[in-house]
Amino acid sequence: MKRTVAYLGPAGTFTHEATRAFFPEDDVELVEYPSIPDVLDAVDAGHCHYGVVPVENAIEGSVVLTLDWLIHQVDVLIVGELVYPIAQCLLVHPFQAGRSPEEWTRVISHPQAVAQCRLYLREHLPGAEVSFAESTAEAARQVKSRPDEAWVAIGTRTAGELYGLHVLEEDVQDHPNNFTRFIAVGKEPLPKRNRDPELHKTSILVTLPSDYPGALHQVLSAFAWRQLNLCRIESRPTKKGLGSYHFFIDVEKDWDPVLMAGAVAEIEVLGCHVRRLGSFPCYRVSQGAKPIVR
Amino acid sequence: MKRTVAYLGPAGTFTHEATRAFFPEDDVELVEYPSIPDVLDAVDAGHCHYGVVPVENAIEGSVVLTLDWLIHQVDVLIVGELVYPIAQCLLVHPFQAGRSPEEWTRVISHPQAVAQCRLYLREHLPGAEVSFAESTAEAARQVKSRPDEAWVAIGTRTAGELYGLHVLEEDVQDHPNNFTRFIAVGKEPLPKRNRDPELHKTSILVTLPSDYPGALHQVLSAFAWRQLNLCRIESRPTKKGLGSYHFFIDVEKDWDPVLMAGAVAEIEVLGCHVRRLGSFPCYRVSQGAKPIVR
Repeated sequence: MKRTVAYLGPAGTFTHEATRAFFPEDDVELVEYPSIPDVLDAVDAGHCHYGVVPVENAIEGSVVLTLDWLIHQVDVLIVGELVYPIAQCLLVHPFQAGRSPEEWTRVISHPQAVAQCRLYLREHLPGAEVSFAESTAEAARQVKSRPDEAWVAIGTRTAGELYGLHVLEEDVQDHPNNFTRFIAVGKEPLPKRNRDPELHKTSILVTLPSDYPGALHQVLSAFAWRQLNLCRIESRPTKKGLGSYHFFIDVEKDWDPVLMAGAVAEIEVLGCHVRRLGSFPCYRVSQGAKPIVR
Repeated sequence: MKRTVAYLGPAGTFTHEATRAFFPEDDVELVEYPSIPDVLDAVDAGHCHYGVVPVENAIEGSVVLTLDWLIHQVDVLIVGELVYPIAQCLLVHPFQAGRSPEEWTRVISHPQAVAQCRLYLREHLPGAEVSFAESTAEAARQVKSRPDEAWVAIGTRTAGELYGLHVLEEDVQDHPNNFTRFIAVGKEPLPKRNRDPELHKTSILVTLPSDYPGALHQVLSAFAWRQLNLCRIESRPTKKGLGSYHFFIDVEKDWDPVLMAGAVAEIEVLGCHVRRLGSFPCYRVSQGAKPIVR
């Protein structure tokens, strides 16, 4: 039986490219879902074995919808991580390809892709109105559907190929070293891989007992004196009011029954609520690597 | 001479309502700008005395564009804070007001407003396609411009009045206690007020010297043993690569030359870069308070 992997569609987005790289095996079927909540719900309900969603971008920071849905709506484990390079392209209809920069009237993309290219757009396409689409691939589809308009989509090279668009410019994001961190979620660990992971991590969600001076400091102490490196701390609202937060904490260590278990037991006794979100292998795709096609 | 206050427009957004509450004085002129960067740039360039932008929502968390523009693009001080209640309404064209829930074909709003009403929309308007607008007020304008369409905007009661729309439903956000924290920025302190602030805060931006185990813990120690309460810690990417962060830290204390200055001096000697973003008074508008009209 094929294993199924839910991913945030449509086809041609960075999540689609990353999911192919995450699950290159032949016996895997990729299933497209229209939103991050839908992907996570599909795994939680058992409709798919795994799901892949973005969790953090090097420039824009956390994908808060992923974090919030994991906290509040589903009970799934993080089973793997993939860091994937993001190269934004300007995609235009082939009929429009000869235009000069000031003639483009509209730029369409996902709000996060627009944010990643803000300075570039200000400088190079000052006359273009910005409009938002649900995804970079949807933006490409809109540009393809209007051959008579001087419209530009921001998206992947893959979306350009998929929709038969002309690549006007590559790597238009304002900052180099633009990577996105994707997570795979599931109810059981990833199957064994041929390649070795770069490292292992453990993700936990910590809710402080109440707002008192030094509470977070006390939590961090339990990890610091054990020399457990925290590679990420991200606060998210509990949604109970301003000033009340959950903390996503990523520890650069696989789960172990002494150091990790000891730190967690201590902060629980101090009154924190701790939820283990998973211990998992982390992989990375280098910048300039060709997208996997299958 | 009138003092000028830049705000994130258009008229009828929550930022507009909050700016009126922030600067109720008669000798103040509010000036609308189309984006958060434009507001902050206007103050930085001296075109306006003050500017008001959202910085954190109780449900959605930080407004990262505000944080990132403050870090990377401008040199202005935070001079005040206002916590303002957010009540999202469903606004429809009066010609369409009689429809039943399943007949609405499209919901239009700013992505953050849509996110705040995600569960409500799933349950009550499952047949409506979501499309994004640059602001809640722009969504209201779009609905008003198409009297023949069964479209719904999510926005403020003020936008409903401004565009002559029918309020189909009030308080449709998924979570109660929805407040947004706004900041005023400027080159000099706010003028003296009649009302007393709720408290004073100091905002600093800390960049750790390098990624070593326990670095953030050491920074927090400098505040913890002085019993300086940190009411907010938010990490934002330095944009130099995944895993490299600035930390926005809000301390519940006005600046003082002993405790605050001592803590900052210590962490600077430890190798951190510290930027003082401002020490300022904090105000709050209660839930259910009527918007100020002028």
